[in-house]
Amino acid sequence: MTAADGTPAERAHVLATAARAGDRRALARLLTGVENHTRTAELALRALYPDAAASHLVGITGPPGAGKSTLVAALIAELRGRGRTVAVVAVDPSSPITGGALLGDRVRMQSYAADDGVFIRSMASRGHAGGLSSTSAAAASVLAASGFDYVLLETVGTGQSEVEVAAAADTTVVLEAPEMGDEVQAIKAGLLEVADIVVVNKGDRPGAQRTAAQLRAMLTPSAAETHADSADGPAPSPRRGPQPRHPEILVTTAATGDGVPALLDAVIRHREEGVDGVTRVARRGRAAAQLRALVAERTWARLDDPAHQALVDQVVDEVAAHTLDPYAAADRLLAALHP
Amino acid sequence: MTAADGTPAERAHVLATAARAGDRRALARLLTGVENHTRTAELALRALYPDAAASHLVGITGPPGAGKSTLVAALIAELRGRGRTVAVVAVDPSSPITGGALLGDRVRMQSYAADDGVFIRSMASRGHAGGLSSTSAAAASVLAASGFDYVLLETVGTGQSEVEVAAAADTTVVLEAPEMGDEVQAIKAGLLEVADIVVVNKGDRPGAQRTAAQLRAMLTPSAAETHADSADGPAPSPRRGPQPRHPEILVTTAATGDGVPALLDAVIRHREEGVDGVTRVARRGRAAAQLRALVAERTWARLDDPAHQALVDQVVDEVAAHTLDPYAAADRLLAALHP
Repeated sequence: MTAADGTPAERAHVLATAARAGDRRALARLLTGVENHTRTAELALRALYPDAAASHLVGITGPPGAGKSTLVAALIAELRGRGRTVAVVAVDPSSPITGGALLGDRVRMQSYAADDGVFIRSMASRGHAGGLSSTSAAAASVLAASGFDYVLLETVGTGQSEVEVAAAADTTVVLEAPEMGDEVQAIKAGLLEVADIVVVNKGDRPGAQRTAAQLRAMLTPSAAETHADSADGPAPSPRRGPQPRHPEILVTTAATGDGVPALLDAVIRHREEGVDGVTRVARRGRAAAQLRALVAERTWARLDDPAHQALVDQVVDEVAAHTLDPYAAADRLLAALHP
Repeated sequence: MTAADGTPAERAHVLATAARAGDRRALARLLTGVENHTRTAELALRALYPDAAASHLVGITGPPGAGKSTLVAALIAELRGRGRTVAVVAVDPSSPITGGALLGDRVRMQSYAADDGVFIRSMASRGHAGGLSSTSAAAASVLAASGFDYVLLETVGTGQSEVEVAAAADTTVVLEAPEMGDEVQAIKAGLLEVADIVVVNKGDRPGAQRTAAQLRAMLTPSAAETHADSADGPAPSPRRGPQPRHPEILVTTAATGDGVPALLDAVIRHREEGVDGVTRVARRGRAAAQLRALVAERTWARLDDPAHQALVDQVVDEVAAHTLDPYAAADRLLAALHP
């Protein structure tokens, strides 16, 4: 029997077994299923999930132009040099419809196509029913269960969902580049919250050491407390709860590999030091976020049931016409789902 | 009685009445309540919702550096010149914790502080329990019900949630700037899908007209169909369903105001021509997205109930330890919510 035959459960068993054995086509097919939320992928993931605990999930995020893909390529080279296997999920902001531009670094990564110790997957960042965090967490679990020592999750850190994806890793690396403009600085502020390690990349540019020094000054606990006290907005994200926030700040030049071994050492150290504390907190946070997404997804699936379609259509029409407010409409839908 | 006294229902009535009468402090307080998902804000929004239908909601999005804030400032000036009132919700990627950098254009907009026909609000893009789209839709409804002729929703179009916010407007304007780099090009591809009007800003730069011509070539229906046929990824976003996609492509120089009157004409034309078709589809899509977010939010609220806390903690622990898979865990939680 091949993976295309049989019931979803049978196909899932075939795919999970093949993926665990290192079959790259099975792995690719399973990841497509994860992206499309198929029943087969769900069943395969359920079978694989217990094997997914050993891998180290590293989130890599930062503003456009900071050099994320180049750094990922450099980390792959460093990990392979140390004999470790690595899978990459690159959350690509380009659209599945218009195709999007291929990034130069993706091409560079394709040099690993013949290396069984490397697996690279691009994932569109839009159109995921259960949210990007649920989909990417599932993809990371599949790759971890397939035996990769490291799973790198690369996202552009300029959107809410994208930052959350990178933040839900065992270790979150936030990239900066020296001399970025005003708007990018504003983006940066939101990113730094989730950083376990901050990397100033393009270290060969003037201003790199100065940017690193500024970040160190900015990320001292006293400065952070002052800002938190003066904030009049909503409460900060509860992801990691109260814990000391002293991200390491490193300088790399990913294009030449300068500083990359030290970065990998810091990533490993972060996990080792945190394995009973920080990592456990991160994994609980990731599990909780994934569960929330799945609970929402399964609730929405019930609304998509043909039995509810007439009510859903009517309620949506009334809200669109402003004859029913959205809160009353949501309560009416929930009452119909759970009479 | 002031807005600070009484039950949530009484406070909501006071706030809704004051906001409808144009009281800016009440409006600001109501928007803070919307951001923090308070019961008072929900009740006030329910009261205001029937009045929210008349306003024209315009989403404005694009990559960092395209000049969104400058264009918003220019549109405010143009609208005021035509005697229309306008509210702006700027979804700001900076964090509430670290404060974030103030953008120069925000300062420029503050010149409208004494103009009752203009209201500007920044909203953090992270930490919204029900998702950014639910929160910003609620904020837009509050502003629309308070009598503003136009509500402009400005987001950085580089994240899934942020693009969805701008896309769920009556009219969605996507900004581009000439001569952007590779990574920004990739982002652009995802943005163009949601555009009703594409604006090449910074029209005084070399290459602006060429960029506009390229976009016109790219957005011809035949080219779009070719791309859709060759895509092997997940299905395209169902937001607007099948409909002709011929966005107008305009060139502006927001900093000088060049092209801004023509842009506003195009925005008005888009709504007028689409009021029984495109706008209705957009409003249905927005209502459906908001309902999905609220249904999820209310389901999560049940999980946060102390009665379920022991089970939630246990299930999250098991998923984090990889002894229970997330799908089985989600089913267990849903069964507990709805026995």
